[in-house]
Amino acid sequence: MSNASLLILPGDGIGPEVMAEVRKVIDWYGAKRDLTFDVSEDLVGGAAYDKHGTPLHDDTMAKAQEVDAVLLGAVGGPKYDSLDFSVKPERGLLRLRKEMDLFANLRPAQCFDALADFSSLKKEVVAGLDIMIVRELTSGIYFGEPRGIFEEGNERVGINTQRYTESEIDRVARSAFELARRRGNKVCSMEKANVMESGILWREVVQKVHDEDYPDVELSHMYADAGAMQLCRWPKQFDVIVTDNLFGDLLSDAAAMLTGSLGMLPSASLGQPMANGRPKALYEPVHGSAPDIAGQGKANPIACILSFAMALRYSFDQGDEAARLEAAIETVLANGARTADLMGPEDGTPMSTTQMGDAIVAAL
Amino acid sequence: MSNASLLILPGDGIGPEVMAEVRKVIDWYGAKRDLTFDVSEDLVGGAAYDKHGTPLHDDTMAKAQEVDAVLLGAVGGPKYDSLDFSVKPERGLLRLRKEMDLFANLRPAQCFDALADFSSLKKEVVAGLDIMIVRELTSGIYFGEPRGIFEEGNERVGINTQRYTESEIDRVARSAFELARRRGNKVCSMEKANVMESGILWREVVQKVHDEDYPDVELSHMYADAGAMQLCRWPKQFDVIVTDNLFGDLLSDAAAMLTGSLGMLPSASLGQPMANGRPKALYEPVHGSAPDIAGQGKANPIACILSFAMALRYSFDQGDEAARLEAAIETVLANGARTADLMGPEDGTPMSTTQMGDAIVAAL
Ligand SMILES: CC(C)[C@H](C(=O)O)[C@@H](O)C(=O)O
Ligand SMILES: CC(C)[C@H](C(=O)O)[C@@H](O)C(=O)O
Repeated sequence: MSNASLLILPGDGIGPEVMAEVRKVIDWYGAKRDLTFDVSEDLVGGAAYDKHGTPLHDDTMAKAQEVDAVLLGAVGGPKYDSLDFSVKPERGLLRLRKEMDLFANLRPAQCFDALADFSSLKKEVVAGLDIMIVRELTSGIYFGEPRGIFEEGNERVGINTQRYTESEIDRVARSAFELARRRGNKVCSMEKANVMESGILWREVVQKVHDEDYPDVELSHMYADAGAMQLCRWPKQFDVIVTDNLFGDLLSDAAAMLTGSLGMLPSASLGQPMANGRPKALYEPVHGSAPDIAGQGKANPIACILSFAMALRYSFDQGDEAARLEAAIETVLANGARTADLMGPEDGTPMSTTQMGDAIVAAL
Repeated sequence: MSNASLLILPGDGIGPEVMAEVRKVIDWYGAKRDLTFDVSEDLVGGAAYDKHGTPLHDDTMAKAQEVDAVLLGAVGGPKYDSLDFSVKPERGLLRLRKEMDLFANLRPAQCFDALADFSSLKKEVVAGLDIMIVRELTSGIYFGEPRGIFEEGNERVGINTQRYTESEIDRVARSAFELARRRGNKVCSMEKANVMESGILWREVVQKVHDEDYPDVELSHMYADAGAMQLCRWPKQFDVIVTDNLFGDLLSDAAAMLTGSLGMLPSASLGQPMANGRPKALYEPVHGSAPDIAGQGKANPIACILSFAMALRYSFDQGDEAARLEAAIETVLANGARTADLMGPEDGTPMSTTQMGDAIVAAL
């Protein structure tokens, strides 16, 4: 594989710990499968703020634009809660998404067999669940202007703007339909067209893209509140869900939690193809920085390792090697390997973060 | 009880059917408990559109402003899907909320003992669940300007505006703290202060109201995506949740579904006190118009009847009579009465809507 470059941004909280395990996996691929990556590492989030006074240094931003894929751990923590909005850890991540134009955020919500008992949902509701949420990631209320806190009369008003153009909706809809064709061939689009005009445009454009270019894919529309309900009631009715940035934030988190496998779920954020044909791409676990357990060796590195598997698949066209890695993780879990988040209070002694990483490398 | 006036708006779909059962209950209170209401009835939603070409006639709006309480069934249906946004059934409901200034939407998410098995969640996760979601209902992205679909360059853009003033946040926060004092004394406020300035202002104002006037209530803050997760994981951690209009829409629907008691859940939307001391008020079930089962006698009237119980409590200061009605419903359920929505496919023949209404009146 030529010129495969990776930028690793461990970030805050448990980010550095889980990323250390990913590096073991990357090393294994270099040594055993001749898949070598040109790896560099840098700061993001609170870690970047501590050093540079900004959650993402311009040099790091420039590097991210040049590499084939960015791997990110997690950002944020209570230490940074009182920082000004403009330099909060999250702004670093949001800047990466926006400037790399990573419009399609792929969030699989999968229930791992070995963990079906671990969901708060009944086993029959989640066992075998495998849905893909495609969340628009570069627009909507996360980025729309005007925004801010303004004086008005004798009080303040907080304002944010939801904003979607036809082409923004069009391109993320295409991503969803393409994915659906390689899966269950079904897309459900979610918005609030009954109360928001941006939702009306969303629904109309998704339908148009479907009718013109993907008539073979089954398309349905659902209001986002009904979508939240249906995810909780019977998530297996879905294959691919496509929705906007804010709804996607809530719905994908709810879906991830429902699987019982939150510490296991990766994500890919993809943009336009670069000159070499690879898409702009950032991979990160769905879970956050978990400051409460950071530095204690308790974190589950699997979500971050599976994010690297997604990178193999979507950035480097190494679907077989991605499947190899996923299979190794299945094996390890089937053999009973568990970090603390995958155990009940009476289930014995959990594995540490490094033990889990080592077990996965051993299974490879 | 003097001058107790009720405006009944059955609306669309199953609305008229379930409301017919509420009228039996109202009649019973008049005959047996000497609680008489001056009841009038009118159209809303698609039903109003069919007659007047608008989902809420000005005369109906004026009547709603004068009565002590409005009881609404449900609005909407596929028949009206292609209508222009401005005359969709939902606009009738939204106009009532806005012009009556019903800023505090109280949505209990309760798991009825008899129905705990019916949730998609494990029994231990939901049994005994009793939380109250207080959703801001007159502002935010539902009503903010500018809004619409505009031409921009050579494409269209859909725009909505999230907008909260300090006083809007202040008053709904107070409602939440007041309620918490009469319950578990705990409030969790949800927003996305990590990405939205309106969320920053929300968090700040809720904290200020707490510190100044409700320091005895336990207050926490949570990002709305984490809130969606935690509702799915362990909902019993919450007592009162306060959140904005859009987050409240999704979160309260998810919470309602999780209880397994969706067909059972009422809601109250309250505004400022009127001259007679009663608050402006509208009561409605959480469920929608369910067009797929409308007119078949399959609907569960309990959510609508419990909405009337909320009216007794919050508008007419008849907490004991509300409790009587709630107890009658518990009794009927404990005796095994079930409408179709409360049964599995192998559980025998369900009760009809009218049979359930009659059973409740008999138990009173
Ligand atoms: C950290 C935060 C800015 C982010 C978001 O809101 O998008 C996170 O919740 C996510 O879903 O990736
Ligand atoms: C019918 C619709 C306008 C409404 C809303 O979005 O508020 C409904 O979903 C609700 O929650 O009461």
